[in-house]
Amino acid sequence: MKIGIVGAGQLGRMLALAGYPLGLQFQFLDPATDACAGQLAPQLATSYTDRSALAALAEGCDAITFEFENVPHDSLVFLSDHAPVFPSAVALESAQDRLTEKSLFGELDIPTPRYVPVTSLVELEQAVETVGLPAVLKTRRMGYDGKGQHLLRTLTDLPDAWSELGNVALILEQFVEFHREVSLVGVRNRHGEIRFYPLTENEHRDGVLYLSRARSGDPLQPQAEAYVSRLMNHLNYVGVLALEFFQLADKLLANEFAPRVHNSAHWTIEGAETSQFENHLRAVADLPLGSTRQVDPSAMVNLVGQLPPRERVLAIEGAHLHDYGKAPRVGRKVGHATVRAESEQALDRSLEQLLAVVSQAESGN
Amino acid sequence: MKIGIVGAGQLGRMLALAGYPLGLQFQFLDPATDACAGQLAPQLATSYTDRSALAALAEGCDAITFEFENVPHDSLVFLSDHAPVFPSAVALESAQDRLTEKSLFGELDIPTPRYVPVTSLVELEQAVETVGLPAVLKTRRMGYDGKGQHLLRTLTDLPDAWSELGNVALILEQFVEFHREVSLVGVRNRHGEIRFYPLTENEHRDGVLYLSRARSGDPLQPQAEAYVSRLMNHLNYVGVLALEFFQLADKLLANEFAPRVHNSAHWTIEGAETSQFENHLRAVADLPLGSTRQVDPSAMVNLVGQLPPRERVLAIEGAHLHDYGKAPRVGRKVGHATVRAESEQALDRSLEQLLAVVSQAESGN
Repeated sequence: MKIGIVGAGQLGRMLALAGYPLGLQFQFLDPATDACAGQLAPQLATSYTDRSALAALAEGCDAITFEFENVPHDSLVFLSDHAPVFPSAVALESAQDRLTEKSLFGELDIPTPRYVPVTSLVELEQAVETVGLPAVLKTRRMGYDGKGQHLLRTLTDLPDAWSELGNVALILEQFVEFHREVSLVGVRNRHGEIRFYPLTENEHRDGVLYLSRARSGDPLQPQAEAYVSRLMNHLNYVGVLALEFFQLADKLLANEFAPRVHNSAHWTIEGAETSQFENHLRAVADLPLGSTRQVDPSAMVNLVGQLPPRERVLAIEGAHLHDYGKAPRVGRKVGHATVRAESEQALDRSLEQLLAVVSQAESGN
Repeated sequence: MKIGIVGAGQLGRMLALAGYPLGLQFQFLDPATDACAGQLAPQLATSYTDRSALAALAEGCDAITFEFENVPHDSLVFLSDHAPVFPSAVALESAQDRLTEKSLFGELDIPTPRYVPVTSLVELEQAVETVGLPAVLKTRRMGYDGKGQHLLRTLTDLPDAWSELGNVALILEQFVEFHREVSLVGVRNRHGEIRFYPLTENEHRDGVLYLSRARSGDPLQPQAEAYVSRLMNHLNYVGVLALEFFQLADKLLANEFAPRVHNSAHWTIEGAETSQFENHLRAVADLPLGSTRQVDPSAMVNLVGQLPPRERVLAIEGAHLHDYGKAPRVGRKVGHATVRAESEQALDRSLEQLLAVVSQAESGN
């Protein structure tokens, strides 16, 4: 069985690594000639809108999926006419526009921060009255890793924010003084069966995920599962989905969802009975879902810009390196490392060592 | 860093899958044009004695290893002149001839069954007097998975055994009425550091490994570790090595060793902190060794001849399928499945289900 994957970055690469043992084969489509998943499987190196390439992908594959949410919606619709596509184009579309996404959350009684769409500076001024300050002005489309966002603290920030972002459709969102950022990753198969990983606690730096730690048994797990179930069932979703939340006291506010495997669940490769990558493929390939139980305390740290010396990472007890095979570049996710341990205390120790190695590499020591 | 691997079967394939996350690249050499590791990395599809291909392999790689012990010794010596080769040609040579291997065990005070080399029918008759019956007549070289062996129960079996095997150098070995078959897999790096996986209990069928179960905390672990340490240190060994034992009461008798990753440790992919494949590569690439602790109760079943329906395997709690991407053929190892569970009791349940699925597939139901 061959799976076509739109996008050939690290998520595609980890999908292939998880899928080969299942007997799956892969075909990637990505315009980047140095795309890192292309080191592991054949890649069509052409535009996402190249209809003949899309047709070839659909023709050669038994099912199609994608590894990032900015796949052109039209391309996914086109693919859907020629092959089974999971998650669906509708699910993708719902995640591509922050306004559509937030409206859907509202429709499904999933609480969110306050928000108002904005199309002019005047509307922005009115929106600030509704949403309050601080607030975050965001592009409705194509944002990721903190890009396309501007934090507004005072009214004097408005003109600059508008001139930076105002050439596209925007949304103003309440800035939540959150207690924690958490995400829930779930997987749903073609028959409607759903499984959830434990809630993951996330820390960001400059808008980019830095640290994720699995929190099995978290008291907010049932609340998060209820929201994600509602979303998946409404979308008749197939595959892995991640929903990011802000936690305020004992309440979760939905921030955004990703219709794909997610950085905050990379720890599942070692830390869960079945990784998110394998479970996504099981869902897409119509195979039984695997157990999502947490095997051991686990945490993941992103490696951004350049890798630390690999021998220093691997010398840490229970550390697992994931080098994406990408050239170093400022701000680029080039790998991650997961630590797994027999106890939360042992995990604390390994994690402390890992963070020291990573921050030394970042500061060039 | 690029690792050259001689042989491109399932062991090579699992080495590549373990090595990509470490940022390693691979180049295989294997004459079989459909070799299953060749699906995951470039392969030189030529003879193991093709000097220009061997030179190209050595030139393009930072280190060389091999995935089976019948690599021509001369080829490994040739490679060693051009690149670092681990394990060494000397270690390989010691494992290739059952007489050399048994003599080495004797030299290192590692107990073995009684044995006598045999070069004629007359010598065979004399050997039976020394070794006793039942006994096993084996080819000294090129045997694997029970091939090149003949069980002798009575004196009347001798002529047939001789006419079947007598055209090559032979060894007669005592047939041990063993209590268990176990193996110990260890890894040693270039600096002499050694780590051991837990002892694994093995069951064979028709000479082929069928079932392996990890036995963390086994009382014979220290005895086995002492023997393997002696062997590895004597050979100045680098990489993973497996030593197979017969257990008689509370004593271990060494049967044979494999200078490579070993079928009886496939469970380590899911069941150990660091898999044998990753640890072999860490040793070969001069990276720190990873923890060998057993994460959870685990057992592995070989899938021989043809795969069972994958959806039936994957429906079992904690089951992990490893499809080698090989065409089905009677007696051929085409995959394995590992089950991992929270407790030995839960493992018993999953293992029972897995064995039922596998035996149904074998009987064509």
